[in-house]
Amino acid sequence: MRNINIGIAGLGRIGKIHLKNLSRNFQDVNVLGVMDVLEGSREIAKEFNVPNFVRTFDELLAIEGLNAVAVCSPTNTHADYVEKAARAGMDIFCEKPLDLSLTRLVEVLKVVEEAGVKLMLGFNRRFDPEFKRIRELVAAGAIGDPQIVKITSRDPGPPPVSYIQVSGGLFLDMTIHDFDMARYISGKKVKEVFAKGAVLVDKAIGEAGDIDTALITIVFEDDTMAVIDNSRKAVYGYDQRLEVFGNKGMARVDNNFPNTHELYTEKGVSGDLPLYFFLERYDVSYNQEIREFIEALRAGKDMPCGGVDGLMSLAIGLAAKKSLDGNRPVKLDEIL
Amino acid sequence: MRNINIGIAGLGRIGKIHLKNLSRNFQDVNVLGVMDVLEGSREIAKEFNVPNFVRTFDELLAIEGLNAVAVCSPTNTHADYVEKAARAGMDIFCEKPLDLSLTRLVEVLKVVEEAGVKLMLGFNRRFDPEFKRIRELVAAGAIGDPQIVKITSRDPGPPPVSYIQVSGGLFLDMTIHDFDMARYISGKKVKEVFAKGAVLVDKAIGEAGDIDTALITIVFEDDTMAVIDNSRKAVYGYDQRLEVFGNKGMARVDNNFPNTHELYTEKGVSGDLPLYFFLERYDVSYNQEIREFIEALRAGKDMPCGGVDGLMSLAIGLAAKKSLDGNRPVKLDEIL
Amino acid sequence: MRNINIGIAGLGRIGKIHLKNLSRNFQDVNVLGVMDVLEGSREIAKEFNVPNFVRTFDELLAIEGLNAVAVCSPTNTHADYVEKAARAGMDIFCEKPLDLSLTRLVEVLKVVEEAGVKLMLGFNRRFDPEFKRIRELVAAGAIGDPQIVKITSRDPGPPPVSYIQVSGGLFLDMTIHDFDMARYISGKKVKEVFAKGAVLVDKAIGEAGDIDTALITIVFEDDTMAVIDNSRKAVYGYDQRLEVFGNKGMARVDNNFPNTHELYTEKGVSGDLPLYFFLERYDVSYNQEIREFIEALRAGKDMPCGGVDGLMSLAIGLAAKKSLDGNRPVKLDEIL
Amino acid sequence: MRNINIGIAGLGRIGKIHLKNLSRNFQDVNVLGVMDVLEGSREIAKEFNVPNFVRTFDELLAIEGLNAVAVCSPTNTHADYVEKAARAGMDIFCEKPLDLSLTRLVEVLKVVEEAGVKLMLGFNRRFDPEFKRIRELVAAGAIGDPQIVKITSRDPGPPPVSYIQVSGGLFLDMTIHDFDMARYISGKKVKEVFAKGAVLVDKAIGEAGDIDTALITIVFEDDTMAVIDNSRKAVYGYDQRLEVFGNKGMARVDNNFPNTHELYTEKGVSGDLPLYFFLERYDVSYNQEIREFIEALRAGKDMPCGGVDGLMSLAIGLAAKKSLDGNRPVKLDEIL
Repeated sequence: MRNINIGIAGLGRIGKIHLKNLSRNFQDVNVLGVMDVLEGSREIAKEFNVPNFVRTFDELLAIEGLNAVAVCSPTNTHADYVEKAARAGMDIFCEKPLDLSLTRLVEVLKVVEEAGVKLMLGFNRRFDPEFKRIRELVAAGAIGDPQIVKITSRDPGPPPVSYIQVSGGLFLDMTIHDFDMARYISGKKVKEVFAKGAVLVDKAIGEAGDIDTALITIVFEDDTMAVIDNSRKAVYGYDQRLEVFGNKGMARVDNNFPNTHELYTEKGVSGDLPLYFFLERYDVSYNQEIREFIEALRAGKDMPCGGVDGLMSLAIGLAAKKSLDGNRPVKLDEIL
Repeated sequence: MRNINIGIAGLGRIGKIHLKNLSRNFQDVNVLGVMDVLEGSREIAKEFNVPNFVRTFDELLAIEGLNAVAVCSPTNTHADYVEKAARAGMDIFCEKPLDLSLTRLVEVLKVVEEAGVKLMLGFNRRFDPEFKRIRELVAAGAIGDPQIVKITSRDPGPPPVSYIQVSGGLFLDMTIHDFDMARYISGKKVKEVFAKGAVLVDKAIGEAGDIDTALITIVFEDDTMAVIDNSRKAVYGYDQRLEVFGNKGMARVDNNFPNTHELYTEKGVSGDLPLYFFLERYDVSYNQEIREFIEALRAGKDMPCGGVDGLMSLAIGLAAKKSLDGNRPVKLDEIL
Repeated sequence: MRNINIGIAGLGRIGKIHLKNLSRNFQDVNVLGVMDVLEGSREIAKEFNVPNFVRTFDELLAIEGLNAVAVCSPTNTHADYVEKAARAGMDIFCEKPLDLSLTRLVEVLKVVEEAGVKLMLGFNRRFDPEFKRIRELVAAGAIGDPQIVKITSRDPGPPPVSYIQVSGGLFLDMTIHDFDMARYISGKKVKEVFAKGAVLVDKAIGEAGDIDTALITIVFEDDTMAVIDNSRKAVYGYDQRLEVFGNKGMARVDNNFPNTHELYTEKGVSGDLPLYFFLERYDVSYNQEIREFIEALRAGKDMPCGGVDGLMSLAIGLAAKKSLDGNRPVKLDEIL
Repeated sequence: MRNINIGIAGLGRIGKIHLKNLSRNFQDVNVLGVMDVLEGSREIAKEFNVPNFVRTFDELLAIEGLNAVAVCSPTNTHADYVEKAARAGMDIFCEKPLDLSLTRLVEVLKVVEEAGVKLMLGFNRRFDPEFKRIRELVAAGAIGDPQIVKITSRDPGPPPVSYIQVSGGLFLDMTIHDFDMARYISGKKVKEVFAKGAVLVDKAIGEAGDIDTALITIVFEDDTMAVIDNSRKAVYGYDQRLEVFGNKGMARVDNNFPNTHELYTEKGVSGDLPLYFFLERYDVSYNQEIREFIEALRAGKDMPCGGVDGLMSLAIGLAAKKSLDGNRPVKLDEIL
């Protein structure tokens, strides 16, 4: 089996996580280069003994011996980078979303397919031990046929309005993880979406044309259902929970906490807040997703989540937008 | 203060609970008579030393000294009995729903109002220690302004199809409790309803024109939201949970269990199932609701839930039906 | 089957509970009389429509038709009353402890035996749904052979020193329940006791010759063990927990709470305190123990806990005292 | 600030953990060499790019530039290695126990003191996020003055009898962690120990002169108490819990689980077992303890646990042995 010689594009928060995990956890993986537009990131490359630091994606692809890339740069670069990487014959790990335009996304996937390279999309929550365990239980038939999936997904605080303006909006930026989760957990095809939204956190978000609170009903093709509730601001921190109800039972997972302590005083019983945000909560999942990427490459197996998963989640997100705008349920057929 | 001399109409499951609680828990309450169409119920009256057992509601009202009634007979008798009782000057406790027709309900409420008697509707879950505690927390501002209310309400098994046919359907029979809970917890006015439903439990329910599984989105007048999920059959028993998310926090309550035991064996960790159904789970709430009825009568205070609460829940239920039939959100204005 | 015509001696907190439960929950039980040294208790008798109120135990026994008594008077009267009742042919329910003297206790048990009447001792915790469930699990072999029993038993606050002075001390007044629990749960014979104690709550308790905090090791005849920890003052309320570890698993129960709510705010996660004290926590168990007394009488079956259970717990308590005084483990053989 | 150039002695399970953590988590730490008696460990050294692999401790100490060692070799080598390292001027991290003989331990500590080097003992549980949080709460006064400390510590299965024979016995091999925990959590000086033990898991352990189940009472100098219960075999896996009761409250931590899932089926509610054993449960604590060692070295601060902690735990263990043999409480004064 060949070694995996990988380059990483983008050293933001997520890029750094992948750099650390790729550098430290595998014997047969070499991080040959990292690319970042900021010169300041050169130090980070040095810290992890990466031999090449470059400022453009083309230079990254040109590194001798490179056979894979991890695209962790800003969303608006993903489609171009993936196309280029595919044409250069690289296997690709790409952070979600691949693109916010359905047409463009389809184009890129065609290029990837023609190139015959592997593409994995970074829906990291599939690799969270909590959600993964639920998926295993569902797959093993422990709850029978899933009838109602319930996803709670709330952030501790909204991103800056400047980010929201280019994010594609709540559904494509934040809920897209939950759309993927609904598909992953149920294993079913989405038929219809109905979305309600409101601006309850910050008026500036509304002025930027987005919402910050949402409740989305999903109907699968067999008339079973899912519901997602989102808020950009839970004062108690990151809130990531899941429940599946089926004809043979129900399974649920709760948030993760830094410890299990319970304190009893004369005032009541108390404990610590959940892990604060995605970097803390999904630390293990980031580690695990890149491991599964590497293992699938090594074994020549299908990626655990790929282009079609990105496509479906984007389509659901666009349906949700259309539903919110028209205040009516929208069939996925109207989008795809 | 006068004594409360009460008559009870109907000795089904709920009627018996009220008989027991009214007979045993108050010094100044006399159960002067009970009425049931079945002669066999005479024994029950005797067991509780009730001086009069009658077979018609008119005979019940005619009992000397009677000044209050509890209407626990089948739903289709509620409107007539409440009207008669009101005209006879009785204060009234009536099981929900008062009627399945909005027009008829409005008529009855007018009669009650003209008679100047008190009317309390038996939305017993308001008196459940779990939900009541959440209401207290919300009222005290502990979670700030409620933004998302989440209600899970699943029965252990469906009633007979014969019952379903006269029940008014899932929304008016089962979800109506949850509609009231959404209003009670949030303290807000409902603006719009969107309901999805499916037949996933038993085809015969579908053939009877009803659904057995539902997911309902409620939008309040300030654009905050609630979601209710229902199933007629949770194989693990009664599932009654509630969560409220607000701008200052989140509060939730879980099911009640017969005990707290956790058993650790080499196979895993396990515990007992939740209390099986409403008689077990809401035992305390039935006790407490009748106590609050009596206390409000004694103190001449407003009833903790009254005719308007029945009216609003019925209207939401009718909106949900219309939404389900038309697959579109329905404004409450279209109903009321 | 004959009716049970019972008299109740003593209308303190516990006496009133038994009066209420005996009056209201059974059709074939008649509370023919109550006895209390305080004239003021006559009102309570009236409230429950008890036909006879008397001031002496002899008058109680003299009530025509009486065939059972419940002894709820102060501890120092128990032995005499039980003897008298036995000689009068009454079946007897007696609050624990029967007596603080082992010699006297043995005498009384002999009288009871000779009289051929039934005697049940009020170790109410055996009837608590939590502990009962653990006993069932142990009896069913769910944890295999019990090897370590752990009992936590802490009161919300100490009784008045005046009470402590006549109570027999922590071990005979408070821990005696836990000694019985250790025997009940394990189903094993106690061989040896080692007790450590301290005065950490209130110096006045120490000055009265007692301790307020204790840690007691029990060794059963098969060398398996139990540990009990006690405090007279847990600022967060009544703390009553149990765990059993065996060669096939472990089972534990936690405290009971007024509701299950969890409140998440920016400060942390919190919930309500456990039920405050024995009247709240053991409400169900008091109800259940008197029910089992009545049912055992009706069925002519053995009492669920009897004189020998009182004897054994007293002996363990005396061994604990001796151990504390001598700072050495004490064999039960030294006591019995 | 100088770089830390460390050598690791012993590449067993724990040695490998420290090698991984020291290699990967620090920029200014260089693992210059590893020593192991087994030639096969050379591969491991290579995997982590350690420049020197040697077979004797003297060779390890001789590596140019070395200024610290981590002693992870078998217990019977600890004392000699620490002495040698101290004399060579190395700062030292040493796995517990330093030695099983009190006399020898005192000797070694004297050498360390005279050499003026730092010594940290690997009581890794102090760095577990659960126990650390409890210590923080106690230190912050959240529960007031600790009165009863309760430690549960059970292994999933016993080690081979061959290991038990050289382990120093249950108290010095297994409970020694709990003795340290009792001191760490309470912050108090131990006065007296009473230990009961039994052979309930495997007769062969008894034949080897050891016990496999124990219940140990500790009395601190202010008469507050701790209790530890141990078993060599909990069929449900590693059981590591802690509770502290004080005059202002109680705090407790539970086991750690691989996920939070709850599965509700018609048979009951179930979840996964706790993390299986120390490698899983204490993964974070091993990481954290070596981090605190490095940080204390960098800052020139006191070690978070040092020689005196090893001395005290050994003394308590020897007192427990004496107590078990004599079936009597033993004052720590008799040992030290």
